[in-house]
Amino acid sequence: MTRCIATWLMAENGIKKAKDLLDEGKDSAKALLAIIQDVESDERFVSVGRGGLPNREGKVQLDGAFMDGDDLKFGAVMAIEDIASPIEVAYSLKDRDANNILVAKGAKSYALKKGFKEVDNLTKKAKERYLKKCQEDPLKAYDGHDTIGAIVIDEDGHMVAGTSTSGLFYKDDGRVGDSPLIGSGLYVDSEVGGATATGMGEDIAKGCVSFKIVDLMRNGKSVKEATKIAVLDFIARLKRSDIEARDISVVALAKDGTFAAYSNIPNFTFCIDDEKGAKVYRLELDQNGDQVYIEVDDAFKSDWLSKE
Amino acid sequence: MTRCIATWLMAENGIKKAKDLLDEGKDSAKALLAIIQDVESDERFVSVGRGGLPNREGKVQLDGAFMDGDDLKFGAVMAIEDIASPIEVAYSLKDRDANNILVAKGAKSYALKKGFKEVDNLTKKAKERYLKKCQEDPLKAYDGHDTIGAIVIDEDGHMVAGTSTSGLFYKDDGRVGDSPLIGSGLYVDSEVGGATATGMGEDIAKGCVSFKIVDLMRNGKSVKEATKIAVLDFIARLKRSDIEARDISVVALAKDGTFAAYSNIPNFTFCIDDEKGAKVYRLELDQNGDQVYIEVDDAFKSDWLSKE
Repeated sequence: MTRCIATWLMAENGIKKAKDLLDEGKDSAKALLAIIQDVESDERFVSVGRGGLPNREGKVQLDGAFMDGDDLKFGAVMAIEDIASPIEVAYSLKDRDANNILVAKGAKSYALKKGFKEVDNLTKKAKERYLKKCQEDPLKAYDGHDTIGAIVIDEDGHMVAGTSTSGLFYKDDGRVGDSPLIGSGLYVDSEVGGATATGMGEDIAKGCVSFKIVDLMRNGKSVKEATKIAVLDFIARLKRSDIEARDISVVALAKDGTFAAYSNIPNFTFCIDDEKGAKVYRLELDQNGDQVYIEVDDAFKSDWLSKE
Repeated sequence: MTRCIATWLMAENGIKKAKDLLDEGKDSAKALLAIIQDVESDERFVSVGRGGLPNREGKVQLDGAFMDGDDLKFGAVMAIEDIASPIEVAYSLKDRDANNILVAKGAKSYALKKGFKEVDNLTKKAKERYLKKCQEDPLKAYDGHDTIGAIVIDEDGHMVAGTSTSGLFYKDDGRVGDSPLIGSGLYVDSEVGGATATGMGEDIAKGCVSFKIVDLMRNGKSVKEATKIAVLDFIARLKRSDIEARDISVVALAKDGTFAAYSNIPNFTFCIDDEKGAKVYRLELDQNGDQVYIEVDDAFKSDWLSKE
């Protein structure tokens, strides 16, 4: 049994590629890179990779992380500039003895030394979008913070997880959210399962939400229960401090291939592989607050894709 | 009841200062800053703050984080240069709506704008030590990675936690360890307790060790059990992947003021406040593997302090 899951409908094409790779017998790391790199390289997706939303200074600074569920090794880059694929750089860092997390110019100079090409991630379109948004008054700083996060299990039961994002639009120079943080943006252990989060990173990191989901599964909860409990308990905890949680959405995959999503926003979408390639689901909660997954149609997809 | 705990005997003087502040009715945040800033500013301590160990390029890049256990708000800086007190910058970031984690030049430029003074953290002594170490063959890159981590509870039951470190000696430009990562280097929730870790950051981050300790306490374990279980379970998990865990040491404080430490290295020391100011303990494990805390004498202290 193999299985791939990823946040947001933008992952549909990448999941198809990953499914093909897994069917050819490729491992989970290759499949995961295929999912995330498809999104990174697609300029329609303005919150990830090339063409990503620039920060307050007009610079595209990207974050990404890779975690291996077999041995818990990981790599992460934060606020890296001028490199097309943060997930690939993060992946290349995981087998080092130390120095697995690199930020800013240190991350870039490592990547260039490793042979990654220097590119201008501020595409013409991204620049136009930036200049247009900068004229809006008041500036809506925190739109479109949609991280691609994915989890894959291959035939050998080898699980991996990864994330990639350009973070908040109009963020400060050097701002980092939850996405590249092990435990917050992602966590995976092949003995149990994996989880990844997307939304308001500054909130998600307060609860180590991805680690918590995996830990709940480790303690016997189903993946569906684990995602629901982790998010709801965390929201309730913030509420006891009079804090209204902002966007938090998660997907998770158990080692047996069962999956789940949970979110506190309407219309959270995610993709999962199926026999024909990929399926895109929209999350709804039933009257008990339990997750229901509704396959989205082409009209929903083109409506979502037309939003900037 | 008030209480302060911090990693390593270098915190002794800071704990005394914190105890005085708490006795005067100051809050936990003020006390925590006093502990960590005492260590940051003391050039004898080459792994934290001013005079800290430089990276491979001879630059001192510092990490620090502050977490508030009442509302889980936090701030963190990573790979910040030319600023004397990372913990103070981290603390100043915690009440922002977003942009609570800043790295590298973005962190520095934020700090300068906030009025923090630009300083040269590469003191004459640190430079001499760097040049001397660089001549050793083979380079021992990963000595002395000792983070100051502290947890404080004040009369109102308000808990906070914080960390500060210069990270691994001879680390890569931009390398970040566990210390500034919420959940790995530190975690605190006033409803439960707090924990902080020191050692090999690249290992500690794989297990979100601080979050795990707090979560075990949340689920009914004593602080002593929680520290032991979290570290031992994590070491066992790595062992199942044929990985020998490197240095992991933790201290933790429950909301009732009970405290504990655990470590997989000999002679891990920590400080705790007492009526007269501060006490320094050394951790030992008894024949059942349970923690025993032995007060250290002046000979032990001067021996430890004489090591570079």
